[in-house]
Amino acid sequence: MTEFAALAPLAEALRARHHGPEDLVLPNAWDAASAREVVDAGFPVVATTSSGVAKSLGWADGEETPLDEMFAAIARITRVVDVPVTADIEGGYGLSPEQLVARLLAAGAVGCNVEDADHGGDAVLHDANRQADYLAAMRAAARETGVSIVINARIDVFIREFGEPKDRVAETLRRAATYREAGADCVFPIGISDEEEIRAVVTGAGLPVNVWVRQGVPSLARLRELGVARISFGGGLHRRALEDLRHRLTAIRTGDSP
Amino acid sequence: MTEFAALAPLAEALRARHHGPEDLVLPNAWDAASAREVVDAGFPVVATTSSGVAKSLGWADGEETPLDEMFAAIARITRVVDVPVTADIEGGYGLSPEQLVARLLAAGAVGCNVEDADHGGDAVLHDANRQADYLAAMRAAARETGVSIVINARIDVFIREFGEPKDRVAETLRRAATYREAGADCVFPIGISDEEEIRAVVTGAGLPVNVWVRQGVPSLARLRELGVARISFGGGLHRRALEDLRHRLTAIRTGDSP
Repeated sequence: MTEFAALAPLAEALRARHHGPEDLVLPNAWDAASAREVVDAGFPVVATTSSGVAKSLGWADGEETPLDEMFAAIARITRVVDVPVTADIEGGYGLSPEQLVARLLAAGAVGCNVEDADHGGDAVLHDANRQADYLAAMRAAARETGVSIVINARIDVFIREFGEPKDRVAETLRRAATYREAGADCVFPIGISDEEEIRAVVTGAGLPVNVWVRQGVPSLARLRELGVARISFGGGLHRRALEDLRHRLTAIRTGDSP
Repeated sequence: MTEFAALAPLAEALRARHHGPEDLVLPNAWDAASAREVVDAGFPVVATTSSGVAKSLGWADGEETPLDEMFAAIARITRVVDVPVTADIEGGYGLSPEQLVARLLAAGAVGCNVEDADHGGDAVLHDANRQADYLAAMRAAARETGVSIVINARIDVFIREFGEPKDRVAETLRRAATYREAGADCVFPIGISDEEEIRAVVTGAGLPVNVWVRQGVPSLARLRELGVARISFGGGLHRRALEDLRHRLTAIRTGDSP
């Protein structure tokens, strides 16, 4: 047990939301103000978007954000909300599993996404066993702290167009099984959009499944029917917010009030 | 001359915008992403909003933001834009004039608003001579650095409802003269909205005048006709952005896609 043990109930509350009667809908936040809006709108969990956080800090997505800045942004969010916060920390910024867990808890987060894309490396995706070892080490490190953080293992097969299209469900399920064995709580085949493929992954993963909402993805209602446990928006709401701002700025430039 | 001398041309460019053929319109930004949008929309200067920055960081307006966080946010903005940045730093967070100038330049800002409201003090407003001494000391400190930062002296007579309504233009002009003597570049009678009062201040101030756009204020076109040199939106665009987000979150909560 450590200084972070006070976060344990938040981690368990977040975990329980993956197995409850309702799906977990996550309109991802990018700063303290947007996180407050998410909570005020009645959502029981705040998830961050790495792309939104990065852009709001002036960086590009893809691990360009200095990690101190990323974790400081996460800490500003956890400071102002009472609900569990799960952080999008891309591929982990080169941190060891132990460092990553310590950073997350120090920032007040009780869950995270971890990508299996090979950031800056030679491969499209990490070898599944290497990624599983990382996740297992995170699980072990979390156990040491007394806070069983919720690990959402991202499977980047679809978004990275890994292998042949016809093989992607099978590769996703193979990785899901490996990550489940390693102690993941949820799998996140980001970029999946076809209804039958979603159904196949939900049926075969043996873990709650996270789907990313974007154009071409079934409606929230349909995702629920398909058994999707966790639905997230990624950087979508932040992109929309910037579009809204762009329209207002154009109106000001053309002499109208916004 | 100092390490900051490279900022001198940006300060002069900002100053010139107060005396150019076009008025200076400032749709205030609150983070790096919104600042980029302001520049991409064609605005030649970025101004920050202290209330928007504070909220995005999770703090309330009114000097609650830890000053390190406020200046770090300003620095994130100056890092990503090439245009002059003028910062809303409320009443100066208790810094000495020398400290304030050093902090602004270290953050890459070449101008600022300084309020004459008495934050946390007993009076509604600072004594005008005391405030003028502060501004003059800022001007002297800036001269030492080789960067003649643009000082926008806020006059909080209207927004703080100081004195009798019939006396507010006269009190504003009295303060404007005092702050002009002290070396201010622009005066900002925040909260002024009546067309005749705006005209009287523009005519009598002897300095460029900044008007804050809010409900009840004449249109941008009319403000131009009245000779207003600088027009700013304060926290207005950030508030609108949060309203837009709220609508999208409500749509998600009720099962629609946003």
